[in-house]
Amino acid sequence: MNAPASHLDALIDALRRLPGVGVKSAQRMAYHLLQHDRASAQRLASALQAAAEHVQHCRRCHGLSETPLCGICADPERDARQLCVVEGPADLAALERTGSYRGLYFVLKGRLSPLDGVGARDIGATELLERAADGQVQEVILATSFTAEGEATAHVLAQALKARGLQVTRLARGVPAGSELEYVDLSTIAHALVDRR
Amino acid sequence: MNAPASHLDALIDALRRLPGVGVKSAQRMAYHLLQHDRASAQRLASALQAAAEHVQHCRRCHGLSETPLCGICADPERDARQLCVVEGPADLAALERTGSYRGLYFVLKGRLSPLDGVGARDIGATELLERAADGQVQEVILATSFTAEGEATAHVLAQALKARGLQVTRLARGVPAGSELEYVDLSTIAHALVDRR
Repeated sequence: MNAPASHLDALIDALRRLPGVGVKSAQRMAYHLLQHDRASAQRLASALQAAAEHVQHCRRCHGLSETPLCGICADPERDARQLCVVEGPADLAALERTGSYRGLYFVLKGRLSPLDGVGARDIGATELLERAADGQVQEVILATSFTAEGEATAHVLAQALKARGLQVTRLARGVPAGSELEYVDLSTIAHALVDRR
Repeated sequence: MNAPASHLDALIDALRRLPGVGVKSAQRMAYHLLQHDRASAQRLASALQAAAEHVQHCRRCHGLSETPLCGICADPERDARQLCVVEGPADLAALERTGSYRGLYFVLKGRLSPLDGVGARDIGATELLERAADGQVQEVILATSFTAEGEATAHVLAQALKARGLQVTRLARGVPAGSELEYVDLSTIAHALVDRR
């Protein structure tokens, strides 16, 4: 290597921790920042520190917020009878972008993953049950992923929520918008057929 | 969105500046760091600052170094008669990993890109000509990319270096190791045929 470069190696290591970044990408990022774009390196460092300092978890939905109560939870126009459960802030953002949901949210800390030792308590199931029992929530919409782990999470949460007398629904499964039927996988078509309306 | 989140947006913007990172990846990284892994966010911020502070450009090869003269340039065992010209530190690292080059390097600031207004002076051609005229360098090996821009860069540099009486070579083009001939593109095979040995 060009240098003993302990600081360079430390930077590459830290960049590798980002989701979706492997060794090659991390090296490319580090070289780019240091060789060509030191202003961006400084900017990223400051942005990381400012965000870590100011962005907290909303005390009600546990999503990201710069205030103790996030904008959605604080909005009196949102329908407090609906509570949509998502795996993380990215899913919440995706749902918000659709503009077709006016209820509130609860943000889990990921999804169940028994093989990695991630159980219901780790993802915030206790807080969800507490939140859903506020007396206002009538329907809990489970919007976890449609993967094996997301489905398992939805199943476990549905049982616990139903046991508390709450109405529990799940996002519809079906053919994605813009799809040609012949290219859609069979399990999706089967679900779309069962859930036809 | 879940929050007015100006600090979150600033972080997403800063992450987007990384090479190969689009909006979606930047959002995913920001959400991951803030929701699940604040320790990594802090670590990355510190690593960026430490690297920006300590990693400088070697005064001789212009590569990345934590000392005024990098490890390679300072190594008396390296062959000062050979000077390998690369587009950036990543290429230098790749060549070093091969373990088959014992000469010195010169690191350009990228490659010529006339459409973006990047000319010979911007990539450090002047410094290269100065460096190559140290009296010790006998052969300049042009190891810029085998893309249109990399080839143009090699061509321009070769002319200037030859005009100063230096021997100029280029990395061999040919069939990559491990390739089956029928899957190699025709231009590569044509080059390999011309440069057969």
